[in-house]
Amino acid sequence: MKLTIERAALLKSLAHVQSVVERRNTIPILSNVRIVARDGAVGFTATDMDLDIVEHLPCAVATPGETTAPAHTLYDIVRKLPDGAQIELDATGGNERLTVRAGRSTFTLPALPVADFPSLSSDDLPFSFSLTATELKSLIDRTKFAISTEETRYYLNGIFVHATDQKGGGKVLRAVATDGHRLARVELTLPEGADGMPGIILPRKTVGELRKLLDESEGEVEVALSETRIRFTFGAVSLSSKLIDGTFPDYERVIPVGNDKILEIDCKAFAQAVDRVAIISTEKSRAIKIALDGGALTLSASSPDAGSAIEELEVSYDGTPFEIGFNSRYLLDITGQIQGDTAQFQMADSASPTIVRDRADQHAIYVLMPMRV
Amino acid sequence: MKLTIERAALLKSLAHVQSVVERRNTIPILSNVRIVARDGAVGFTATDMDLDIVEHLPCAVATPGETTAPAHTLYDIVRKLPDGAQIELDATGGNERLTVRAGRSTFTLPALPVADFPSLSSDDLPFSFSLTATELKSLIDRTKFAISTEETRYYLNGIFVHATDQKGGGKVLRAVATDGHRLARVELTLPEGADGMPGIILPRKTVGELRKLLDESEGEVEVALSETRIRFTFGAVSLSSKLIDGTFPDYERVIPVGNDKILEIDCKAFAQAVDRVAIISTEKSRAIKIALDGGALTLSASSPDAGSAIEELEVSYDGTPFEIGFNSRYLLDITGQIQGDTAQFQMADSASPTIVRDRADQHAIYVLMPMRV
Repeated sequence: MKLTIERAALLKSLAHVQSVVERRNTIPILSNVRIVARDGAVGFTATDMDLDIVEHLPCAVATPGETTAPAHTLYDIVRKLPDGAQIELDATGGNERLTVRAGRSTFTLPALPVADFPSLSSDDLPFSFSLTATELKSLIDRTKFAISTEETRYYLNGIFVHATDQKGGGKVLRAVATDGHRLARVELTLPEGADGMPGIILPRKTVGELRKLLDESEGEVEVALSETRIRFTFGAVSLSSKLIDGTFPDYERVIPVGNDKILEIDCKAFAQAVDRVAIISTEKSRAIKIALDGGALTLSASSPDAGSAIEELEVSYDGTPFEIGFNSRYLLDITGQIQGDTAQFQMADSASPTIVRDRADQHAIYVLMPMRV
Repeated sequence: MKLTIERAALLKSLAHVQSVVERRNTIPILSNVRIVARDGAVGFTATDMDLDIVEHLPCAVATPGETTAPAHTLYDIVRKLPDGAQIELDATGGNERLTVRAGRSTFTLPALPVADFPSLSSDDLPFSFSLTATELKSLIDRTKFAISTEETRYYLNGIFVHATDQKGGGKVLRAVATDGHRLARVELTLPEGADGMPGIILPRKTVGELRKLLDESEGEVEVALSETRIRFTFGAVSLSSKLIDGTFPDYERVIPVGNDKILEIDCKAFAQAVDRVAIISTEKSRAIKIALDGGALTLSASSPDAGSAIEELEVSYDGTPFEIGFNSRYLLDITGQIQGDTAQFQMADSASPTIVRDRADQHAIYVLMPMRV
């Protein structure tokens, strides 16, 4: 294998694929990227056995062939080569080596045999549809903060995505994440082809890699999936992942109906006040208290060591006066996702889950468990 | 004590003083900033017992007095209050509390008694002179990377500053730092008043705090010192520190004379090549090899795991061909301080210290011990 490629294009592809490669691997080949050159193009593949990424780009192929090389080292070299460099990747020297040449720089990297590289799944993916990058970003951003990090509850370590009927009629694609303390549910009109798809749980790492790729993407993303795998394709990049093999809990049960205490607040002013009051809340619980009495909301926190904090806000509220406690970090996570000016809190009492909605966007709903304060 | 002050001014002062306060303190009062309000001004003082900072700024004093409050908490509150806020600090409520009010925010912080706050040294500082902020920055920046972090060699844990006679005549103020592997020596014309000053060792933390303050400073810095203490004054801020009680080694002995192999290189191209080759050097030693043969310099590194790297550079060199090894990180530290285009290496042999100089600036000299490669 021997090919020549411009630095900027190579750097961008390697940035994508090396991101999937773990820093420490007990299986040496998983530290490597597979490089396949043929027909005027090069393909890079990396995998952690659960998540694969493949990217193709055009280049000048002198000798078709394939090899593997340490992904992070190769990426570091390309990153540090000067802008505009023409880089030659040469595995024709044999002896399991890849030589990287550019200007007066020569690097020789150990190359493991291509035969050792895991073969990627070629499972049939019967369902396929497309979303815009913006839609997919929005589904991820408004749910991923609620993904559980408790490894024992592995079925919560991802975003649950499924097709369902909307209350008012019409079908939607829904993304849901929860860690038992808060829940985020976002939906959009069901794309053509997604009808009948199974409910799937997209693992946290896949969500992270997908989100990074979306930062550079515009236009359509092709999604194909089965009950066990999913593949996202954007242009020359294809990200394919195992799904979490578990049952997502019946999340509808934790979304309360009939919460009749309705509070509407200026979301930004509220978030800033929460952020300040949280300075005083104890490091461990992060608890702050909200007291409502007519049009006045009082945020407060106190701790034996740090003192106390009180913030007052004018709000729209005409329910009975009451108090409720929340984890300030969870409040900030949710208010951080609200794009509109006004957040609506639908509450029942100080021991029951509260619903938070963006007044400007009815497609997202957040549920937050209160804390005793 | 009760005063009102504009947020931006308060934030800037607190940013300075809280920086000196350690995150963890076994003595509670050391977590606090002392606040003294009188005569239309407020003074903030923080100390870690070795290093003190005092800053004064004008404000509206309603009730003169003094108190202490947790420095980091107070800083966080002020930082998170909205820009333009008028902030009231009120300790008139008694009961060892400081109340912070702004708009509809109220914070009550525990205040420890002022009497517990350590009294700052009022030692006589017989030597005093002034430097421009730019001169002081330059002394620090070009030496501090070489400060030792080995706690057992406490006399190397700072920058040695002293007055001395220059070879060509004339007196200079010199700053020197070394960790035994490399040494940096920078000098400038001795400022008036510094003649006869003792040699002092400025501790690492003091160097760091001083450097942060210099980032915001222009104009003159007043320096006053004795054998045991130093004080820097810039406008309303005064930083005072104990000096390291130890003897700095006779550094002149390690600066070789008569190194006759003279190499001149494009500093930027060299640094970039070193940075690339270092990718391959082993994590632990960071060793890279320089081979010189006429006008060709070859940089190389190899490791059993990572492969090998070779970079070639055109240089000016007419000594005998030879090879020498260096820690790549140390090379990058030094080349990072060279402002001119050309670095000059004065070498003897592969086992003896090498001198590195900035061709455009004869006031700095760097010495680097070679490594066996």
